Amino acid sequence: MVQELRAGDLNADRFVSQQVEDIRKAVGKGRAINALSGGVDSSTVTMLGHKALGDRLTTVFVDHGLMRAGEPEAVARLFRGLGVPVDIVDARDAFFRALRGLSDPEEKREAITRTFYRDVFGGLVKAKDARFLLHGTILTDVDETVAGIKRQHNILSQIGVDPEKEFGYRVLEPLIQLRKDGVRKVAKAVGLPRDVYERMPFLGPALAGRVIGEVTPERVETVRAATTIVEAELANAGAFQCMAILHDDRVTGMRAGRREFGHQVEVRCWDSVDARTATPTRVPHDVLFRIAERVTREVPGVVSVTYNVTAKPPSTMEAV
Amino acid sequence: MVQELRAGDLNADRFVSQQVEDIRKAVGKGRAINALSGGVDSSTVTMLGHKALGDRLTTVFVDHGLMRAGEPEAVARLFRGLGVPVDIVDARDAFFRALRGLSDPEEKREAITRTFYRDVFGGLVKAKDARFLLHGTILTDVDETVAGIKRQHNILSQIGVDPEKEFGYRVLEPLIQLRKDGVRKVAKAVGLPRDVYERMPFLGPALAGRVIGEVTPERVETVRAATTIVEAELANAGAFQCMAILHDDRVTGMRAGRREFGHQVEVRCWDSVDARTATPTRVPHDVLFRIAERVTREVPGVVSVTYNVTAKPPSTMEAV
Repeated sequence: MVQELRAGDLNADRFVSQQVEDIRKAVGKGRAINALSGGVDSSTVTMLGHKALGDRLTTVFVDHGLMRAGEPEAVARLFRGLGVPVDIVDARDAFFRALRGLSDPEEKREAITRTFYRDVFGGLVKAKDARFLLHGTILTDVDETVAGIKRQHNILSQIGVDPEKEFGYRVLEPLIQLRKDGVRKVAKAVGLPRDVYERMPFLGPALAGRVIGEVTPERVETVRAATTIVEAELANAGAFQCMAILHDDRVTGMRAGRREFGHQVEVRCWDSVDARTATPTRVPHDVLFRIAERVTREVPGVVSVTYNVTAKPPSTMEAV
Repeated sequence: MVQELRAGDLNADRFVSQQVEDIRKAVGKGRAINALSGGVDSSTVTMLGHKALGDRLTTVFVDHGLMRAGEPEAVARLFRGLGVPVDIVDARDAFFRALRGLSDPEEKREAITRTFYRDVFGGLVKAKDARFLLHGTILTDVDETVAGIKRQHNILSQIGVDPEKEFGYRVLEPLIQLRKDGVRKVAKAVGLPRDVYERMPFLGPALAGRVIGEVTPERVETVRAATTIVEAELANAGAFQCMAILHDDRVTGMRAGRREFGHQVEVRCWDSVDARTATPTRVPHDVLFRIAERVTREVPGVVSVTYNVTAKPPSTMEAV
């Protein structure tokens, strides 16, 4: 069992020094690689790895075609500005091929895990001659995976997968004792800008986790367009996390006086401290109505928008 | 084209006398039958028919297994109290058999129309030797059917179906010039109690229209239990109509610390004058959260509740 390190007890500067030293010891004179998604967890790990290893760390942004609008470019630009080079790898075809025909949530997560760690990362690690993968796993991911609630895409050893044997590298998880609030303190301490360390959580499988049913490029484009609107309208809601989810169910709508059997987008917006429990944000009705009006007008095929009003538990924060 | 009679221009007492006279003329010395669902439209037609024909009218409540909790008994009791005898016909098997395996909304509506008018009613009309069916069609039903938005279960001639040829009876529609607000005035004038003439609209296909995907007895039971909670919690919301809808999509939830891949219920609550356009009611957040808490606790298998925030158009009031 991993020992929890509570945000209130955390000395972020001391934590950073300790992790940098541990990473140096573990990697020795070798090379490491890490995947940067732009979220606070992987961004923090990138900075810890960069401090520890300098140019012996290769930071990769895997463009799986499931990110939000403009995200790959924005993340790469930010880290280059911090002196951390980022390789963008276009793996869109591999992911969409792996997801084709799947609608079960666990099968979709499994396909993403496999494609990410074996197909895409396995090859990159070999090409870079890296023996270590730095990984942004946090304690909440472990809890939920062990409890069988959902498989986080980045949990391997906890579910009995040996990445060295199966994928050819060892995994280092410097944030494993922390929850989200602790990670934010460390993110600030390693010099990340405010819009990263206060950034809303964004899940590993990215927009694939925001599509109920089959994940196709077209359906991801629909939820991506809705996400842009939802995040813009809820930017000042003070929420822990907000999201748009594309449903597979279709509902009857009307457009220009005629029936349109269209799509529904569900909006979720959470108040939470550490993601273990959460309650829906009291988003004002006017804001919700404006989101619905914009999404149904600006996103082709969407005729209906709902707002989730359930607490976690019994809901989870993501739908898939 | 039917000429609209606006609620503001309507003299309800004169309208009642006129319709009673018209029904008497049309039916002559024959017999008529009518289907009572308990909604304001069919309740008003029942009273008009009763005034016109007395015991030459047979009023039938078709129990298709799709009504709300306790509804068949409550409706029959109310009308018996008003001196109108009601025959309850148990047609549950016929409806669930017709609905088995269907998930397309239009196919479901078609199956209900066919079962109602041909299988169940065709037989009853013959048994009663009735040549006339009194029917609660209102102008909004006609508009939406002609526009191809959705098929109302009670529209026949407007879509080119000849009920006399196909089902063996003629249809009389005394409310066809009215919209909902006009019907409420007439309902009051014919002596119906307030909880009928102010009653929320409830759709013809009943809870079958509140189930996305296949309509089975189990799924109807789920949405029926959710409906009881939603109607109780929103009774004082001053809304035109409110409803619970069971989705076919499943979402990830958690219960007692473990994953539960469960069901989602969508709540809709509408402000509207005449159902042609509508906006979501500004239900207070506390009420929405309490509905979610109750539905996920009291209705087995439901882990998630949403509230619809879209206007009509582009939404419609019902989902199916």
